[in-house]
Amino acid sequence: MDDRELLQTVMGIVGEENCRDDCAVFPCGDLAMVATTDMLHSTTDFVDGMSDWQIGWMSAAVTISDIASMGAEPKYLLIAVGLDKWEQLAGVMQGAKDCCTRFGAQIIGGDIDRHGELTVVTTGLGLAKKEFLARREGARPGDLVCITGTPGQAQAWLDGYTQFEKFLFEPQPRVAEGRLLARGGVTAMMDDSDGIALSLYDLMSVNDCGFSIDSSFVPRPDEVPEQQARELALYGGGDYELIFTLPPGRYPVTGVPCTVIGEVIQEKSVLVDGAPMEKRGYQHRWA
Amino acid sequence: MDDRELLQTVMGIVGEENCRDDCAVFPCGDLAMVATTDMLHSTTDFVDGMSDWQIGWMSAAVTISDIASMGAEPKYLLIAVGLDKWEQLAGVMQGAKDCCTRFGAQIIGGDIDRHGELTVVTTGLGLAKKEFLARREGARPGDLVCITGTPGQAQAWLDGYTQFEKFLFEPQPRVAEGRLLARGGVTAMMDDSDGIALSLYDLMSVNDCGFSIDSSFVPRPDEVPEQQARELALYGGGDYELIFTLPPGRYPVTGVPCTVIGEVIQEKSVLVDGAPMEKRGYQHRWA
Repeated sequence: MDDRELLQTVMGIVGEENCRDDCAVFPCGDLAMVATTDMLHSTTDFVDGMSDWQIGWMSAAVTISDIASMGAEPKYLLIAVGLDKWEQLAGVMQGAKDCCTRFGAQIIGGDIDRHGELTVVTTGLGLAKKEFLARREGARPGDLVCITGTPGQAQAWLDGYTQFEKFLFEPQPRVAEGRLLARGGVTAMMDDSDGIALSLYDLMSVNDCGFSIDSSFVPRPDEVPEQQARELALYGGGDYELIFTLPPGRYPVTGVPCTVIGEVIQEKSVLVDGAPMEKRGYQHRWA
Repeated sequence: MDDRELLQTVMGIVGEENCRDDCAVFPCGDLAMVATTDMLHSTTDFVDGMSDWQIGWMSAAVTISDIASMGAEPKYLLIAVGLDKWEQLAGVMQGAKDCCTRFGAQIIGGDIDRHGELTVVTTGLGLAKKEFLARREGARPGDLVCITGTPGQAQAWLDGYTQFEKFLFEPQPRVAEGRLLARGGVTAMMDDSDGIALSLYDLMSVNDCGFSIDSSFVPRPDEVPEQQARELALYGGGDYELIFTLPPGRYPVTGVPCTVIGEVIQEKSVLVDGAPMEKRGYQHRWA
């Protein structure tokens, strides 16, 4: 059992429309508010060597990235911290606060709990004009498939390339880029936190089309052997880049460095170098 | 170290103004939106005998109670579920959904995580007219101190009185009462989830006055020996009643059954039966 299978259970109970995007959306006056929540904890997310400050930063960043992927402006963060050692709280809170400040949000509330292992749940709220919200749905055959930055660097650290520590420990959500892209007319967008492959499969699940990418176009971590670098870039998790589609006529979007890695196709498949792409990446699994 | 001491650390980082009430407040068009987050987990919150459905219900209810205590209308809930056994998810989600439906909210988003023990974090969002928001600050000497319902029943179950199971396992947040009280002009309000004593100390921390209650006025769990019933009613946790203050001229508030248990005094003390009240109740503690 993995989390995408479990999501089917959730959809059956709360409705499919609440599981389609990186954030939920509801009206807030004349604007749209987006909301998202993320649970991180020591066993699976906070690796050895991270400081408390970095744990706080990461916890805020992953939620802010979901807001960025909708093209919205991060505004508010709530943070629930389950602590085994109370001494960690100050560092975690300071890291979360600094990340919020960096991206224009503020911490407005939270909860403290005694817990068997450090567990942090952040809930982020953002605002956007309704007409400038990006969604996962909307890709059309002929659109370009693009990605910001260089995917695979966070996973490269996990595979022993210590020079990539900052990418895993201090992710930088693409807030400015997300807003520019949404205003620039992207047709579909999400973050690639579970890897490019799973992201494309997630996009396909809400679009009546498929995706074909060319692995030679995908930027790869430097100083990593070629085959491993390709693997990391396509299937690695822990990045917070934006993956998006847009009509060729709207490319490039001013102010957003990115790479065209493929195109949207009519066939409902995810292809890499012309062959079906493996559906794997960062997933939780249960026995 | 307990959670009220740790809160001082948090205040130093995120600002004291974000830690004063049961919910954060920010503008949403012409209305005020309130937001709150709560972490619950097996070791300290989900007792043996609770069904998955009850775990979900409780998780939603504790957050909805915070919204109720502001006098707001619950609108949206996000739920992050950390699971050791994936089979529990459906029951937890159904319980949370049913609680939301009962109180007028809907689940709009969430996260699923693999975790060493069942951990549920709910974030609730509610709306109110700005002029009808209740706060913890605002109590004035001479106001009555009141409480809804019968405190101590949830704790009574923990002390072996099994007839009170529903009060602990399926708390009923006072949503309708909260809205009526806020419109009826309460001067300060919160929920009593950590017990009456700690609630009064929390209220004193943001008000320039104190509280004097008469324990003989406080409703007590039935069929429990008198001394134990008094203890449960004053210091027990796990209830989700509303404790509030209002000027005598505004009492009673139509449609809200409640009990006057004391009055607001000028002296900055919490008194029970004329003597200082012990500052104890439900708290997390760290070694």
